[in-house]
Amino acid sequence: MALIVQKYGGTSVGSPDRIKNLARRVARFKALGHQIVVVVSAMSGETNRLINLAKEIMPEPDPRELDVMVATGEQVTIGLTSMALMELGLKAKSYTGSQVRIVTDNAHTKARILSIDEDRIRTDLNAGYVVVVAGFQGVDENGNITTLGRGGSDTTGVALAAALKADECQIYTDVDGVYTTDPRVVPEARRLKSITFEEMLELASQGSKVLQIRSVEFAGKYKVKLRVLSSFEEDGEGTLITFEDPENKDSNMEQPIISGIAFNRDEAKIMVLGVPDKPGIAYQILGPVADAKIDVDMIIQNMGADGTTDFTFTVHKNDMTKALGILNQVQAHIGAREIRGDDKIAKVSIVGVGMRSHVGIASQMFRTLAEEGINIQMISTSEIKIAVVIDEKYMELAVRVLHKAFELEEA
Amino acid sequence: MALIVQKYGGTSVGSPDRIKNLARRVARFKALGHQIVVVVSAMSGETNRLINLAKEIMPEPDPRELDVMVATGEQVTIGLTSMALMELGLKAKSYTGSQVRIVTDNAHTKARILSIDEDRIRTDLNAGYVVVVAGFQGVDENGNITTLGRGGSDTTGVALAAALKADECQIYTDVDGVYTTDPRVVPEARRLKSITFEEMLELASQGSKVLQIRSVEFAGKYKVKLRVLSSFEEDGEGTLITFEDPENKDSNMEQPIISGIAFNRDEAKIMVLGVPDKPGIAYQILGPVADAKIDVDMIIQNMGADGTTDFTFTVHKNDMTKALGILNQVQAHIGAREIRGDDKIAKVSIVGVGMRSHVGIASQMFRTLAEEGINIQMISTSEIKIAVVIDEKYMELAVRVLHKAFELEEA
Repeated sequence: MALIVQKYGGTSVGSPDRIKNLARRVARFKALGHQIVVVVSAMSGETNRLINLAKEIMPEPDPRELDVMVATGEQVTIGLTSMALMELGLKAKSYTGSQVRIVTDNAHTKARILSIDEDRIRTDLNAGYVVVVAGFQGVDENGNITTLGRGGSDTTGVALAAALKADECQIYTDVDGVYTTDPRVVPEARRLKSITFEEMLELASQGSKVLQIRSVEFAGKYKVKLRVLSSFEEDGEGTLITFEDPENKDSNMEQPIISGIAFNRDEAKIMVLGVPDKPGIAYQILGPVADAKIDVDMIIQNMGADGTTDFTFTVHKNDMTKALGILNQVQAHIGAREIRGDDKIAKVSIVGVGMRSHVGIASQMFRTLAEEGINIQMISTSEIKIAVVIDEKYMELAVRVLHKAFELEEA
Repeated sequence: MALIVQKYGGTSVGSPDRIKNLARRVARFKALGHQIVVVVSAMSGETNRLINLAKEIMPEPDPRELDVMVATGEQVTIGLTSMALMELGLKAKSYTGSQVRIVTDNAHTKARILSIDEDRIRTDLNAGYVVVVAGFQGVDENGNITTLGRGGSDTTGVALAAALKADECQIYTDVDGVYTTDPRVVPEARRLKSITFEEMLELASQGSKVLQIRSVEFAGKYKVKLRVLSSFEEDGEGTLITFEDPENKDSNMEQPIISGIAFNRDEAKIMVLGVPDKPGIAYQILGPVADAKIDVDMIIQNMGADGTTDFTFTVHKNDMTKALGILNQVQAHIGAREIRGDDKIAKVSIVGVGMRSHVGIASQMFRTLAEEGINIQMISTSEIKIAVVIDEKYMELAVRVLHKAFELEEA
């Protein structure tokens, strides 16, 4: 008997029929003697419907009140899911984030989980219930409803699996696993049977929209066994997210150097030009941005010849105007010559644990792009990733030629 | 400066534009220096949408899970309403029933309010906030979400007004007050400037769908000044629900004997025939029905000639099948000859504080119906009401002829 947390996304609960399907799957697992916690998202389209409704009233919705509204999406789904399980003769009980004490900080619309009170769930599981929990939402210490931001239901699933010390956290989605890249851009993309946490982290954060980055961090931190599966396939094995075992990797001659290619066009580039090159300047620029709870991704600093430096970073496109506003306020204080934003960019990354033991990967990537006449605007590297920022219009082309150059096609 | 609770029903919050209208009205009251608590229903149609969604999964939805789902309707509205107030520059804050501790019993889908913790609201009001509370919902002592049943938002409004000792509770609706009867049935129906609590209680419970009966009981019990107004009229004065002052009534020569005519076709008649006439029989019949939380309205018992008695009562149409099932189980035990149900009935009542001091009202009512050939199946009277059950198909006719016979037309 195992304790399994199953998370179902918006398309998996997108209609009453799909919810009934979900219930049948849960019943099969329950019949094998497992204890099941189900985490569900809002029905597909519902979150956007609610956000648009809010915007009809308030073009920039108040974050606290938006969370109150948006949290209803999952609340509807937990009721429906519990009823679907009851219709199959199972005992089921639903909980909102507030009811099951998923306590978060108070950063409305992008809150972080601080603690989960798992006692109530464990009591119900031991009494034979399937416990259905609303993903994506929590409650702050003052009882205000919070949400975890887009994709936050994955994080709820993994956090519950960690709190309950579950044997496996299964993420059901509309894809059947993690691919070398998005098959909509490269039809030859191939499903990976397993992938390391680190690779997954890079792929998810770079735009392979399979799992939300925070959920992967959580899973890595709490050693949660995580599996991505299709909710439309009966017996798929999906992609297992593994802890890295470098020796295994090295001993496996067939281990590819590159596991996959990630990309996204959700980011915007912000350039702070001609800043005096002195200690503390990075903090003076990024401090106010972080205080406004704007997430920063790539950060690059180039020393100029004249004692000044150019400072470039990327934020989510939605945050660009806000970030520029903040920087314009501190421009005089930090002595910057110019502040500029560009949201017509895309980021393309090659990811692979294998690249550590190989030289020449970066140069192969740059050469491949150069051969297509694609100019590279920013470069950022980590042990298992090389990311470049390019003009948005070349994104698909870049992904396709890199996929081919690194021989990631279906065998 | 007064403290006013304003309750807005489903049509008053039925679209973003209507919510903006509502906000402008609140702003006008706020500008006069009043403290305002706003209670809102779900947007019109939303509760039915959610119930139908639930039924697609579970034809008889689990009450606990249905409450979880249905409570989201008001939760969306409180977020939207708070934002609309903020857009006008007001400070506003929303609360669900759970957040503001509207504690109820655990009778899911028809819970009753036990207590309200008004401290949080008072603190916000004193800090200058308009407080927006979700109507219709509460939370039981174990943290389960409950709902108060259809029209429960009125009850929330009155209960909050009582807890906060508000100066007035204003119920905004799509009608501009209480009429002598439903103008859709009798075009000559006239709006009443004021009506006593007792009359209102009878009219609301009998089917004048202006206010929910429980809210009127609450208002009477806690001496809440209650006013029914149109949310589509700028300066209507609506109908004030007054405490009865018998002396005033008697001194007013123009006080009509009958205030209004109520009717409904939501009830079904259940006949328990040929029961041995012995002590305790009424409890043996109605006890199991009450245990199943089925509300009973009229109850009539007629002694037969043969030492048996016929016992007839009415329940909501939706509860008829359930009530019959319960009675069939106890039929042998109570020794009833036959149990029969009829949902093709209507109840028509004449209501008026004035009828106490006049004789002959009942006979005038019965004669009027007899002249139209309408057979009376049940009669039930109280100090200020005479109600009859008739064949459903004669309902409109009965209301029209009674309205005319008692001279209730527009002057």
